[in-house]
Amino acid sequence: MIAVFRKLLTFEEAQKVILEHVDPKPLGFEEIPLLEATGRVLAQNITADRNIPPFNRSTVDGYAVKAQDTSGAEENRPNTLRACGAVHIGEEPKVIIGRKEAAEIVTGAPIPEGADAVVMVEHTERTGDNVRIFSAVARNANIMKAGADIKKGETVLRSGRVLGSREIGVLAALGIAKVKVYKVPRVSVLSTGAEVTEPGRKLAPGKIYDINAYSLNAAVVESGGRPIYLGVFPDDLAELQKALKLALASADVVLTSGGVSVGPKDVMPKAVASLGKPGIILSGVAIKPGKPTTIGLIEGRPVFSLPGHPTSALLVFDLLVRPVIQMMAGRSPEEREEVKAVAGARMFSTKGRKTFVMVTLKRNTSNRMVAEPVETGDSGAIMTLAKADGFVEIPENLQFVDSDEEIVVHLWRKKMQETVRSR
Amino acid sequence: MIAVFRKLLTFEEAQKVILEHVDPKPLGFEEIPLLEATGRVLAQNITADRNIPPFNRSTVDGYAVKAQDTSGAEENRPNTLRACGAVHIGEEPKVIIGRKEAAEIVTGAPIPEGADAVVMVEHTERTGDNVRIFSAVARNANIMKAGADIKKGETVLRSGRVLGSREIGVLAALGIAKVKVYKVPRVSVLSTGAEVTEPGRKLAPGKIYDINAYSLNAAVVESGGRPIYLGVFPDDLAELQKALKLALASADVVLTSGGVSVGPKDVMPKAVASLGKPGIILSGVAIKPGKPTTIGLIEGRPVFSLPGHPTSALLVFDLLVRPVIQMMAGRSPEEREEVKAVAGARMFSTKGRKTFVMVTLKRNTSNRMVAEPVETGDSGAIMTLAKADGFVEIPENLQFVDSDEEIVVHLWRKKMQETVRSR
Repeated sequence: MIAVFRKLLTFEEAQKVILEHVDPKPLGFEEIPLLEATGRVLAQNITADRNIPPFNRSTVDGYAVKAQDTSGAEENRPNTLRACGAVHIGEEPKVIIGRKEAAEIVTGAPIPEGADAVVMVEHTERTGDNVRIFSAVARNANIMKAGADIKKGETVLRSGRVLGSREIGVLAALGIAKVKVYKVPRVSVLSTGAEVTEPGRKLAPGKIYDINAYSLNAAVVESGGRPIYLGVFPDDLAELQKALKLALASADVVLTSGGVSVGPKDVMPKAVASLGKPGIILSGVAIKPGKPTTIGLIEGRPVFSLPGHPTSALLVFDLLVRPVIQMMAGRSPEEREEVKAVAGARMFSTKGRKTFVMVTLKRNTSNRMVAEPVETGDSGAIMTLAKADGFVEIPENLQFVDSDEEIVVHLWRKKMQETVRSR
Repeated sequence: MIAVFRKLLTFEEAQKVILEHVDPKPLGFEEIPLLEATGRVLAQNITADRNIPPFNRSTVDGYAVKAQDTSGAEENRPNTLRACGAVHIGEEPKVIIGRKEAAEIVTGAPIPEGADAVVMVEHTERTGDNVRIFSAVARNANIMKAGADIKKGETVLRSGRVLGSREIGVLAALGIAKVKVYKVPRVSVLSTGAEVTEPGRKLAPGKIYDINAYSLNAAVVESGGRPIYLGVFPDDLAELQKALKLALASADVVLTSGGVSVGPKDVMPKAVASLGKPGIILSGVAIKPGKPTTIGLIEGRPVFSLPGHPTSALLVFDLLVRPVIQMMAGRSPEEREEVKAVAGARMFSTKGRKTFVMVTLKRNTSNRMVAEPVETGDSGAIMTLAKADGFVEIPENLQFVDSDEEIVVHLWRKKMQETVRSR
C-alpha cells in the first residue's frame, strides 16, 4: 500500500489514489415500492414483458368497422352499416365485426375482432340499427396498435438511470410496483475540536459553534447519500478511536473534519490509522484551501478527514468526496455547471498548489458576466462560501489570473441565471 | 366568478386565471431540526445575534504578543520576550499579555487580553522562559477578528432561500439548531378510468396499467411537494365525489387525471363542481397536448384535472401545476433550462393551439445541436416522453417550425451536456 506522508500529492494524483484504492462501486441493490423511488437509481435493465398498450385501442369515440366497408363514403353519399353492439372500456369485446357491421366504441376501448379501423362519431349518424358513415377510413385509422408505445422485449430503461417522473411512468405502464434500485450510501459525519460546540447548546467563552458536521450532513444529502450525524468529539486519541469505530460500523463512508493540520493535538490521522488496514492512503493534497486533507481506508471503507475550516471542508467534499458517494450510489459523478466569465480582479494562486477562489457573478454594463473574488479575511469563513456563486480554479503553474481574463466559473447552485437576474 | 365553458382559454390566459383565482402563496411555516432542513425553504430572515467568530482568534500556532514588541526583529537580530503562559483552545485565556511578554497559542484559540498580534511558531525559538522572535509582525497579524466572518446584526439569509449545505453551515455557525421553514404543500394524486388498473395487480383483458398517478406522484416530489397517492377510481359521479372529498380533506392541492375529455362518461368536472364554491374556474386550454385540462377551486384549494394521456398529463403538470406547488412551497417558480438548437425536421403546430413537440437532441457533424421530434404514433405514449430530452413550443400563430430553423428546447433533465455526450 502506498504511503505518501510528508509529500503532497497533486489534485490529480489524489483523484487517482481515490479511484484506485477506494475504488468506489455501487453497494448493492434493494427492492422498494415504485411510489417511493423518485430520485433513486435503477439497478436493473428493464425489458418489457408485454406490449403497451396490451391490445389495439381506439383513439377516438366512434364506430369500429372493417375499413373496406367505408370505401367511397362521402358527406353526401354515406355508406350504411348495421349496428352490431358496443365495446365497453376496460372490458374484453363481446362482439365480432362481420361484413357491413359497425360496433359503438369509446376512446381507449379494445378494437373488437373483425374490425380494422374506427370511424369518428362526428362522421357517423345512427338511426335505430343503421349507422351511416360519411367518411371513408383507411385500415388502422384511429387505432393505437398493441405495442405502439412499448414493444414486448424492448429494453425501456437501463441500470444506472435516475428515476424521475417520466421513468416512473414507464415502469408503471409495465405494471411494475416494486423496483430494484441501488442502495443509498450511508455516510457517518463527525466533527472534532475542543473548541467546537453543537448548535443549540449554550456557547461557553472561547468556544465556537460546529459548522462542518451540519454543512457536510447537508452536502451528503445533496450528493444522494444518507448522512448519519454523530456530533462533535474532542481531539483525544481514545475518544476518536471509539467514535470512528462506531462511525465505521454503521456506515459505508466516514467523514470527519478538523484535527488534520500540523498542530500537536492533531490526532485524527493516528486514530484512523489505528483502526485497521491499510490505514492512511493519502496525507495532504497540493490544493488551497484543503491542503491537510487526509484519507484513510479501513477494511474497504474510506475515511475522509477534511480540514476544519468550513470553506475548505465543503470544497474538498465537493472535489473529492462527492464523486465517491455518487459512484457508490450507482450514479455518474456529476460535474458542476459552468459559466464563462471575465475576472473582475487579479486572482492569485498559492505557489505549487491548485488554488480555488470563491467568486460572485454579475453582469457588467456591456452585459458580460464578471466574476469578482469574494472578499475574505480568512479561508475558513462560512459567509465567504454562502455569498459565492461559484469558484474559479487556478492551476499550479499559473501565478495569477489577470483582471479581464476569460475564466470558467464552477457554479455552487444550479439556476445561475435566476440568481444573477434577481440581483 | 368567471365561467369559461366551451371557449378555450389561451395558455397565457390560463396562467392568468390560475394566478388570480388560485393565488398560490406559502402555506405557513413549521420549525424543524436544522439537520433535517436540507432542500427546505427558509421562512424567516436570519439576523446574526452574535459575532462569528465570537472572539478574536489566532489563525496560526505561535505566540500571542504586543506587535510593538516585535518591532525591528529580523532573522539574525531577534527580539527576546518572556514566556508568560499558554492559551488553550476552547477556553477563556487565563493570561494577560504585558510589555515584552509572549503567550503560547494554537490555531483557533482566543487572543488573550493585552495581545494584538500572533507570531507564527516557525518564526520563534524558545529556550526556557525566553521566546526569541525572528520576524516583526504588524498589529492584527494572524488574528481573525470577532465578527470577521459574520457581524452581529447582519442579515445573513433571507426568507425564501433554499437551504443547501452552505446556508445550513451559516445557520449552524450562529448556533441555530432549529429553523423556520415553509410548509411543504401536500398534493393528493388520483387517477380515474374503468380501464385503469394499479401496477402490481393482475391485468384483466381490456385493461391497462395506471401511469399517471405514479408519474404525477414523482413529479410532485420533484417540484418540492409531498404527494399523497390515492389510487385509481372509476368514472362514477358518487365514487369520484367521495374520492375528491377525501383528497381535499387531506391536501392543499388535488391532482386528478382522466375523465376530462368529451366522452359521455367524463364526469370529473361535474364531480369537482359539486363539491363547493367557486367550482370550475377553467375548462379547456388551447394547447396541444393538454386541451381538456380543467381546473376547479373548492374553498380555496385548487383541483387540477389533467388529461388521461400520460404525456399530456406530465406536460400540463409541468406548465401549469408545478409553478403553483413551487409558489406554495415558498419558492420562485423554476424555469426549465433551455438550449438553442436547430430543428431536425419540420414540426407542425395544431391550428389555434400552442403546440408542444417532444424532441431528442444530438450534435450533428458540424457540432450544432439538432432537435429531432420524437417519433410517435400517439400523443399519449409514455415512451415518447421518456425518450425526449426536452420539448419545443410552437406558438399559435405559426403553422410550423421549418427544418434547420433555430429553436429553443426546454430541457426535461438538467445536465443535458452529459446526456448528449453519453450517446
